[in-house]
Amino acid sequence: MFLNNSIVKLLNITYPIIQGGMVYCSDYKLASAVSNAGGLGTIGAGAMTPEELEINIKKCKDITNKPFAVNIPLISEYSNTHVRICVDLKVPVVITSAGNPVTYTEYLKKNNIKVLHVVSNTKFAQKAESAGVDAIIAEGFEAGGHNGKEETTTFVLIPLISKSVNIPVIAAGGICTGKHILAALALGASGVQIGTLFIASEESSAHVNFKNKIINSKEGDTMLCLKKIIPTRLIKNEFYNQLLKMEEENNYEQIKNIIRGRPKMGMLEGNIEDGMLEAGQNVCLIDEILPVSKIIENLINEFKQEYYKLQEKFNL
Amino acid sequence: MFLNNSIVKLLNITYPIIQGGMVYCSDYKLASAVSNAGGLGTIGAGAMTPEELEINIKKCKDITNKPFAVNIPLISEYSNTHVRICVDLKVPVVITSAGNPVTYTEYLKKNNIKVLHVVSNTKFAQKAESAGVDAIIAEGFEAGGHNGKEETTTFVLIPLISKSVNIPVIAAGGICTGKHILAALALGASGVQIGTLFIASEESSAHVNFKNKIINSKEGDTMLCLKKIIPTRLIKNEFYNQLLKMEEENNYEQIKNIIRGRPKMGMLEGNIEDGMLEAGQNVCLIDEILPVSKIIENLINEFKQEYYKLQEKFNL
Repeated sequence: MFLNNSIVKLLNITYPIIQGGMVYCSDYKLASAVSNAGGLGTIGAGAMTPEELEINIKKCKDITNKPFAVNIPLISEYSNTHVRICVDLKVPVVITSAGNPVTYTEYLKKNNIKVLHVVSNTKFAQKAESAGVDAIIAEGFEAGGHNGKEETTTFVLIPLISKSVNIPVIAAGGICTGKHILAALALGASGVQIGTLFIASEESSAHVNFKNKIINSKEGDTMLCLKKIIPTRLIKNEFYNQLLKMEEENNYEQIKNIIRGRPKMGMLEGNIEDGMLEAGQNVCLIDEILPVSKIIENLINEFKQEYYKLQEKFNL
Repeated sequence: MFLNNSIVKLLNITYPIIQGGMVYCSDYKLASAVSNAGGLGTIGAGAMTPEELEINIKKCKDITNKPFAVNIPLISEYSNTHVRICVDLKVPVVITSAGNPVTYTEYLKKNNIKVLHVVSNTKFAQKAESAGVDAIIAEGFEAGGHNGKEETTTFVLIPLISKSVNIPVIAAGGICTGKHILAALALGASGVQIGTLFIASEESSAHVNFKNKIINSKEGDTMLCLKKIIPTRLIKNEFYNQLLKMEEENNYEQIKNIIRGRPKMGMLEGNIEDGMLEAGQNVCLIDEILPVSKIIENLINEFKQEYYKLQEKFNL
């Protein structure tokens, strides 16, 4: 079905579905499950030590012989070592984010690694294209976790980035159904990156309390906050309320102190009131925890159904 | 092409494109131009006196014999009189917004007027359906002007509302290209409402300075503000900066005083620094001022092109 799709061809996968690399939620178990199901699984290296990353890559290779990726946020203290490990262990794809795409792209590509870079605006998309990355992941305001200052939504961002660069664009932010995949392709994307939906999978390393919080959340239950430090979309909870109060009091020093350790506390350890819970606005559309293989099967089946429905709708 | 489309059939129009009713920008000239071009034109009654609305409806009927709408924000001091005028003058469609859909729906429908209601969340969509409206206009975070507290984007809102109600859903917020129309239909909508793109038409009553400001604005140039009073998306300018400062100082009394008269000053009188400029996030995708007929022709042509491209992309 996707034989002519540029992302499928570039990454040598079956479906143009990339699993986002998410701190504390996406270790080798999730990545290998997504890759085995025909998408591109991603190990989120953001909160890993070099030793942990090495173990995760090796275990991922034990479980799948399909391509997979490592996501390296370039603000990570270990980014340099992480990049070297990916080269040494011949990781097929590296996704860079939160930093300058010039830093490692040439080195990675020389070592036959495909490079994708995450952006939230045109300026960085064009910078990444110039740096030689293979494709852009354009992430809208709906996305969980770190986010762009412009607050540009997926619906506006994808047509904008698509006409600004000549390399393939992967849509991210808000995607969790086959309808979204069809809409993303209609907007000009060649593929999608999905995060929050995969947190709510059986294979993700997120604490079950966090998974349950996602499937029980409704519209309006996530909000973009920390706008003056680094815009971040969180599920509202007791900790979010504290942050909000400190923001209103312009108490940024206190915020910087209080956020340490909170992502781990919330997402890995399952303290859903006092921890930080990064998730997308589409939590309101996610209702059950499923195995990755079933999630991808559902996405593709719904995509096909919606595509046929669209065909039937018009006398073209 | 859209013969089986539920919005086209409901409203007796050619294309499922509704022009949003916008204060100071959409009088009878814009409404009649959109209706004559095959969409549903809308007179924005928000800032009109009863006398002005009456004149606008009569002039609209002189110029077009196609269906058109009047948008009545239910918070308007004249909403009761406006509704009566629409009944007396046999306006084909009334779009209600910013208020309780129960108030006038039954009365309007008894008088053979089709009723659409604008919402930004599931709760009000279901309330409007219960009140008997013919279709829901679901407006995402991208939209210009007044906006929902949940900040739900079009990409997330349309699938959510579509599965929550059994009447047709019209997508609004961020739409300004044929790609967007295709994506909105893929997400579950039956039609679209377009606002900002029509402000930048030759026929809109917006001041030319405001039109030029729209076509010259880039990504990040609009932002949602006034979140504690009524969330409103504005183009950033000197007045926006003043509002932002007052919001940071929690100076809401001062805000309520200062905003009086500012929409008119900005959008109708063309003071683009000191006036309030309501516009959608998609200003970054709008590059020229065109006649309405050309805008609709472009939208439909691009829609068809993108639909064929999508067909070619898959081996289905």
